[in-house]
Amino acid sequence: MASPEIEALSQALARLPGLGPRSARRAVLHLMKRRETTLVPLLAAMQQVAEKLSTCATCGNVDTSDPCSICRDPRRDDKSLCVVEEVADLWALDRSRLFPGRYHVLGGRLSALDGVRPEDLTIDQLVRRISAGGIDEVVLAMNATLEGQTTAHYLAERLENFPIRISQLAHGLPVGGELDYLDEGTLAQALRARRPVT
Amino acid sequence: MASPEIEALSQALARLPGLGPRSARRAVLHLMKRRETTLVPLLAAMQQVAEKLSTCATCGNVDTSDPCSICRDPRRDDKSLCVVEEVADLWALDRSRLFPGRYHVLGGRLSALDGVRPEDLTIDQLVRRISAGGIDEVVLAMNATLEGQTTAHYLAERLENFPIRISQLAHGLPVGGELDYLDEGTLAQALRARRPVT
Repeated sequence: MASPEIEALSQALARLPGLGPRSARRAVLHLMKRRETTLVPLLAAMQQVAEKLSTCATCGNVDTSDPCSICRDPRRDDKSLCVVEEVADLWALDRSRLFPGRYHVLGGRLSALDGVRPEDLTIDQLVRRISAGGIDEVVLAMNATLEGQTTAHYLAERLENFPIRISQLAHGLPVGGELDYLDEGTLAQALRARRPVT
Repeated sequence: MASPEIEALSQALARLPGLGPRSARRAVLHLMKRRETTLVPLLAAMQQVAEKLSTCATCGNVDTSDPCSICRDPRRDDKSLCVVEEVADLWALDRSRLFPGRYHVLGGRLSALDGVRPEDLTIDQLVRRISAGGIDEVVLAMNATLEGQTTAHYLAERLENFPIRISQLAHGLPVGGELDYLDEGTLAQALRARRPVT
């Protein structure tokens, strides 16, 4: 029924995470019915990003400039480095605006199952960044998964001879978490890492 | 954190139905990490649609040509006309491939509450299409809502003096519907419209 152009747009949209074929069709219809207010601005924004898109050679972030906006920001603390698995993690952490330093994206996590070895990640680049000096503290912000934690352990070992503080994100109850609904792993972590009430 | 271009793209995507700010950010990241396989094709598809986008002067469908692909299709039955409220309804019905005729999009439904009167819809155009002759049957495919049914009644009255068959979609149990979970309105309709078992 739909013209080939509309079909192509539906299919391209349906490949986005969070959109299936059905919602993609709804989105296409929405775009077509409101050409000036939705389709045109989206097209322009997408063109801008497509033209300027680059991966930061320093930290591995994807941005519209290289070095990325975080690496270029003079207000950032050069002494602190937060290591994350993926760009999505960097974005998520940075939205909290609580980490004042810079980032390093590994590009994944060590995984025996998926055959991801240290040389498949940007670990050598990380070591070079730290060897270059000026970094006091490294925060290992891996996911709280088996593979994330394996990666964090591996990194901690690789970095142990540098004169830097190495920390990792706390594990425990998430904000709003109810004991009754949390898994045993989280409860065990929260109990093990319990802190004195002051 | 994100550059203004990325922020703009996030916001434009977040205005699509089915995507919120969070899923829009995930979609942006997805597009940026896979530029060649996702961003570029989506951009091209969107450009095509944006350039060719038009509303069919005959039936009110949105398509990449005017007359739209349905109105141009020589295999369609000119004698049957299906009247729908919105373009989305046309697309939904046409996906079923069960209606062989052509369509007419009203552009909404009569609503005392929202102040939508007959002259706000394409009812005059519909009457002109039917007056022009050649149409045998009109299917009123309004939503099974109060306003949809009011609109169907109004149309049936407006069209009663034409030598045409006027029908409307059957109401009853949806396929897979379990009595226990259906509302009383649907059950009442299904009972009232019960048919002899042959």
